[in-house]
Amino acid sequence: MNFEFFNPTRLNFGAGKLAELGKVTSQYGSKALLVTGGNSVKSNGTFDKAVASLKEAGVDYAECSGVEPNPRITSVRKGAEIARKNDCDVVIGLGGGSVMDAAKVIAAAFYYDGDPWDMIFHGQQDVYVPTKALPIITVPTLAATGSEMNMGAVISNTESKQKSPIQNENLYPAVALVDPELTLTVPKNHTAYGVCDLITHVTEGYFNGIDGTPIQDRFAEGVILTAMEYGPKAVEDGSDLEARTQIQWASIVALNGWVQAGVNFLAPVHMIEHTLSAYHDIPHAAGLSAINPSWMRFAAKARPSKFVQFANRIFGIEAKDENDLDCAFEGIKRFETFLKKINCPTSLSELGIGDDLLSTYAEDTLHIIHDENGNLPGRPPMTREDIVDVLKSAI
Amino acid sequence: MNFEFFNPTRLNFGAGKLAELGKVTSQYGSKALLVTGGNSVKSNGTFDKAVASLKEAGVDYAECSGVEPNPRITSVRKGAEIARKNDCDVVIGLGGGSVMDAAKVIAAAFYYDGDPWDMIFHGQQDVYVPTKALPIITVPTLAATGSEMNMGAVISNTESKQKSPIQNENLYPAVALVDPELTLTVPKNHTAYGVCDLITHVTEGYFNGIDGTPIQDRFAEGVILTAMEYGPKAVEDGSDLEARTQIQWASIVALNGWVQAGVNFLAPVHMIEHTLSAYHDIPHAAGLSAINPSWMRFAAKARPSKFVQFANRIFGIEAKDENDLDCAFEGIKRFETFLKKINCPTSLSELGIGDDLLSTYAEDTLHIIHDENGNLPGRPPMTREDIVDVLKSAI
Repeated sequence: MNFEFFNPTRLNFGAGKLAELGKVTSQYGSKALLVTGGNSVKSNGTFDKAVASLKEAGVDYAECSGVEPNPRITSVRKGAEIARKNDCDVVIGLGGGSVMDAAKVIAAAFYYDGDPWDMIFHGQQDVYVPTKALPIITVPTLAATGSEMNMGAVISNTESKQKSPIQNENLYPAVALVDPELTLTVPKNHTAYGVCDLITHVTEGYFNGIDGTPIQDRFAEGVILTAMEYGPKAVEDGSDLEARTQIQWASIVALNGWVQAGVNFLAPVHMIEHTLSAYHDIPHAAGLSAINPSWMRFAAKARPSKFVQFANRIFGIEAKDENDLDCAFEGIKRFETFLKKINCPTSLSELGIGDDLLSTYAEDTLHIIHDENGNLPGRPPMTREDIVDVLKSAI
Repeated sequence: MNFEFFNPTRLNFGAGKLAELGKVTSQYGSKALLVTGGNSVKSNGTFDKAVASLKEAGVDYAECSGVEPNPRITSVRKGAEIARKNDCDVVIGLGGGSVMDAAKVIAAAFYYDGDPWDMIFHGQQDVYVPTKALPIITVPTLAATGSEMNMGAVISNTESKQKSPIQNENLYPAVALVDPELTLTVPKNHTAYGVCDLITHVTEGYFNGIDGTPIQDRFAEGVILTAMEYGPKAVEDGSDLEARTQIQWASIVALNGWVQAGVNFLAPVHMIEHTLSAYHDIPHAAGLSAINPSWMRFAAKARPSKFVQFANRIFGIEAKDENDLDCAFEGIKRFETFLKKINCPTSLSELGIGDDLLSTYAEDTLHIIHDENGNLPGRPPMTREDIVDVLKSAI
């Protein structure tokens, strides 16, 4: 293990925390850019509560609404322009992962005269690396991406059909104000997608990481076990605040770096999914859910032992030996059954995706990221053919 | 769960990292106060390597050596004076928990004209709360306290026979430079004490925290299981870098807040031990080891279920039901056996402590911290008689 860990975001967690938004924001600025998505925060009262809290603390705001699920670079450009025009000094992302991601990139784009797409890593020669950003406050209304407490964002470009990431320390939110009550109205399907999303964040590091990370393994397993215990409860009864709280907490630790510290995090399933949802406007986690079991079967053949550990510690399946592929496959099957139980898709056809463009998806994915041999980083690295095969078996 | 989490320390972890000390320090200052303990860092070459790295990066240094195990307020006073006299602009703690704790408090004392003892919480009316500190860099030479990546310190006052804590955000190290190679020469007994120390940091939150923290429980169990797997290996063969690395990492996550986030951390065993080692110059973790099993038996009666979970998940013991006290006690017994196996004391008499002053220890502990009913905070809260009983059964 040889690694650096740094995460300076202040997490403020608990039911009812939204009421503190104004007080928290006033420590960072007096004119906020309030970034939101669709209409749900307005129809369910969250937006009004947020604005009331800001007003009470004497914080003015300008609005950037309508950020898309799979947030687009056009929204980032628009948000940065609104922030500059209104002399905003702090950015609030009030919404799901898409809204928070857009808010984070807007905060950096505020200081950049060029096109914000330059800072999104999409295979270009010269990536622009932001050196500063407005202070960011994240207020998640969905338990899923963990974007509220990390330095990552994923932005889509519908013109170039690309969906690509940025990782930059200036994008760490100053404060993540996390109020599980805001997730009580999330519908069943998006609740389930969130559970799948957070589990996939953990499985990526768990299965693609280096050997010899026993604590990180236990942490990952802890997140998965908890998500599998409370996820179905939150899906079943959206008003279950205890389940919502546990899932929200799980989603944060799934991607704030605690589980991945030192594991050499790689995310092949995410990279493939990004290409799929650049072509098809599907929920990110639905794409992950459709691909992940097929990827697991592919990867298990290369490294059965980690999948045996997964089968044993998550599902209590006894193995004949540490490379027992039957045990590994049984664990993957049970995981797939879990996804089905919470109504997450486990095939691409459920998402209306056929086999027409499999080679294109593979090529586009490799265009965005590849190692020195031209393969997709992961354990094992994936050739173009591997990607096509995994997608084919996911149909 | 309703809590705040904040830990801005940048962790730089890996074998050989000591060589980066100069480069890292130069980002924070040009004249370091280099705080060290006894002679071991000088005799084993670590000090020379640190100084060489500083020189190479053009960083000058003044020295504050001889910080005691159970670091004394007199050393803090001395260190702050040296730092001021030499216009130091950064403080390096190179040593075990005592050295790092002293370095952290020196960094705050640098800016305080009064007596640094004012900022150590020891039951006084007006605690001085530091508002700033010199940047701190921690370089642990022992895997134990986790002080390298948290905002706590414990300082002793031999005059008043008190050993007391400070927690302040200004005490977060800017950088924790963690090089497991530095621990390869730690002798067997201190290696074992470190393992016990880190496990106790985790058990305090695990057994005294609130209900309904499933992820934190899994994290805690992960740290304990890993420490129990690699601890004996590190004790058996001190040159086992893999075991040293895992124990070092375990000691960091055991007290950097990741395991305790949201659990409402209380530490009755630590508070009682602090009193013991204010009277007797025993290694902190030896004191913890001697008290913890007795405290566990006391606490298990009040809340068997958590001890049943411990017995089940750590030792695989099946319970008749969730309040099966026999199962709980069997888990505690196995834990005690583990402590014995790595030659940690499980009784006060092994430390030369008898029953002469039990009431005094209890009263002194309650003088430093007590709840509104006059009891020691914990689950359950402990009366004066409870503390005496636990100590008596630990003789």
